[in-house]
Amino acid sequence: MPTHKIAVIAGDGIGNEVMPEGLRVVQACARRFNIELEFTTMAWANCDYYLEHGKMMPDDWFEQLKDFDAIYFGAVGWPDKVPDHISLWGSLLQFRRRFDEYVNLRPVRLMPGVPCPLANKKPGDIDFYVVRENTEGEYSSLGGRMFEGTERETVLQESVFTRKGVDRILKYAFELAQSRPKKHLTSATKSNGIAISMPYWDERVENMAPDFPDVQWDKYHIDILAARFVLSPERFDVVVASNLFGDILSDLGPACTGTIAIAPSANINPERTFPSVFEPVHGSAPDIYGQNIANPVGMIWSGAMMLEFLGNGDATYTAAHDAILAAIEQVLEHGPRTPDMGGSASTTEMGMAIAELL
Amino acid sequence: MPTHKIAVIAGDGIGNEVMPEGLRVVQACARRFNIELEFTTMAWANCDYYLEHGKMMPDDWFEQLKDFDAIYFGAVGWPDKVPDHISLWGSLLQFRRRFDEYVNLRPVRLMPGVPCPLANKKPGDIDFYVVRENTEGEYSSLGGRMFEGTERETVLQESVFTRKGVDRILKYAFELAQSRPKKHLTSATKSNGIAISMPYWDERVENMAPDFPDVQWDKYHIDILAARFVLSPERFDVVVASNLFGDILSDLGPACTGTIAIAPSANINPERTFPSVFEPVHGSAPDIYGQNIANPVGMIWSGAMMLEFLGNGDATYTAAHDAILAAIEQVLEHGPRTPDMGGSASTTEMGMAIAELL
Ligand SMILES: CC(C)[C@H](C(=O)O)[C@@H](O)C(=O)O
Ligand SMILES: CC(C)[C@H](C(=O)O)[C@@H](O)C(=O)O
Repeated sequence: MPTHKIAVIAGDGIGNEVMPEGLRVVQACARRFNIELEFTTMAWANCDYYLEHGKMMPDDWFEQLKDFDAIYFGAVGWPDKVPDHISLWGSLLQFRRRFDEYVNLRPVRLMPGVPCPLANKKPGDIDFYVVRENTEGEYSSLGGRMFEGTERETVLQESVFTRKGVDRILKYAFELAQSRPKKHLTSATKSNGIAISMPYWDERVENMAPDFPDVQWDKYHIDILAARFVLSPERFDVVVASNLFGDILSDLGPACTGTIAIAPSANINPERTFPSVFEPVHGSAPDIYGQNIANPVGMIWSGAMMLEFLGNGDATYTAAHDAILAAIEQVLEHGPRTPDMGGSASTTEMGMAIAELL
Repeated sequence: MPTHKIAVIAGDGIGNEVMPEGLRVVQACARRFNIELEFTTMAWANCDYYLEHGKMMPDDWFEQLKDFDAIYFGAVGWPDKVPDHISLWGSLLQFRRRFDEYVNLRPVRLMPGVPCPLANKKPGDIDFYVVRENTEGEYSSLGGRMFEGTERETVLQESVFTRKGVDRILKYAFELAQSRPKKHLTSATKSNGIAISMPYWDERVENMAPDFPDVQWDKYHIDILAARFVLSPERFDVVVASNLFGDILSDLGPACTGTIAIAPSANINPERTFPSVFEPVHGSAPDIYGQNIANPVGMIWSGAMMLEFLGNGDATYTAAHDAILAAIEQVLEHGPRTPDMGGSASTTEMGMAIAELL
């Protein structure tokens, strides 16, 4: 395998604290498995850069990034400095669209050593994927205001669903379901209330299902689906959802397994025409930044997903992914743990402990 | 007080099984407290009516209903007969809009005797309200398809937020928070991803907050807010949300307290220019219909909310509400309970047990 070129963007807040640990573990793992990685750090895509330059990224960001194999990404957002919709639309959400990372893949797994907020669940009981559409749908900056500043003020917000966009995420999800022992797919909808886009989503699911006769599927409205994440999370295998619903479910799922601090995510361009982005599900958490107490596991686990993606099926890379997961499980179970998990370790200590196991 | 005129619409599926129990309890309670109620049953607003007439309701439904004081409503929807967006947009969603029931008030409370899916919670720990905007926002039938039936098919779905619509629900929520001991309000947003409507929502919250200096408020993006419902539900007091976010949170909240089967809701027109609608949060559940095993508590509790609403502050009516709640708590704790709660009682038995305590 050639050397993989990885762009590193720490972003804001605790992104800067968990990134060094992610890199520490990924590098340790790469050494052990003889995987060649080359990292290039970008000092932009953060709110301080915005305050200085009036934009989140340099004008040639696309050119600068487009030839990397992957982007390892911390977290962006610091609302006291820059409103979230400006910082996010100026960075992460651009990557997802411009690099056509139309799959946002988010594992939900109850890990050993993590106290589960749900009663009577043990590791292994919860183990599924949220497959989130990542480029269109409800995340849109189309729309506007009329009668601005008056009592009649009216705001329109457009959601956009395309056949191409819907079909390709459904296909990815059906295929993922097909590859798993349970072969089960759940589609998130809200076609009873959202009367144009969601019936269309349902239609496309029904249209595709016959191509996957061995996959059992069902659909739930997002309200009751969220309820079922809490009441019977062990039922799920692969859950496919629009951009917004996937966003909600992929925070809710990890919450049901104890904490979103350890949850990873992969923003994938399956055709590899542009780099994919690997980032923890958690945000930049300005409130705890500066204390070096953030849990680095989400960042590290995202690094494991990145290695697996780079391997594209190669067994060494899959082994590398599994080795990181095993090290994470070990440290989650026996410590050291950061304060959010009831421990007193620093971000660095937890990261080092995981790296040492490799 | 005059006689209160109540329209009764059972709807589909288990709506027809829980409604008799709701009526049984409300009537028993009314007798005890000398409250005069007059019920009129409507045989429409259900999917069988649709199959016969090609519409969910008669053309003069508005005229027929508009002078009632309240509508006691079961549940609508039977997707094998009529697609949900047709049955719901042809009934419940019409009531909410045409009768300007802009507040959907949904208590979330951990009740005695209900096994909580969250570890280590006891009755009293979870006790808050979801205040959901109920007439606009993401629930819209505006939009359409372009390039229909081709690979380029594109679907637009409009959300509509008005200053009037946003401000009045925020005002209701701030006032409710102000009336409670904790005086705390949480606003659900997603302004980092949904770039036009949600920043507007945030703006209106910020604009109104200074009018309620004694209310402490915060805001969370819907993804992390859903996670917090699971991880720290005891933190919440009043949660205000758009139509869609409120829908999700008001199923998720009751799930965190054990079951959505017992959750009530009130679709309120606070100015009383048109009738308000009282309905359980659960749906019509075609899968369990016909066995008389549906849990009637959501329907009964909604009846209690209806009495309180009809009293409009009158102490007798508040006492009537509280008496029903006490009877519900008693039966939840000591049985008889329906199968969903681990018992073997029928819908009727559970309803009768609650009525007898009155
Ligand atoms: C049936 C459906 C349209 C409705 C809604 O989404 O409002 C229901 O889920 C509710 O919460 O009352
Ligand atoms: C930061 C925000 C825009 C983002 C999203 O909503 O997609 C985040 O919540 C996520 O899930 O990656």
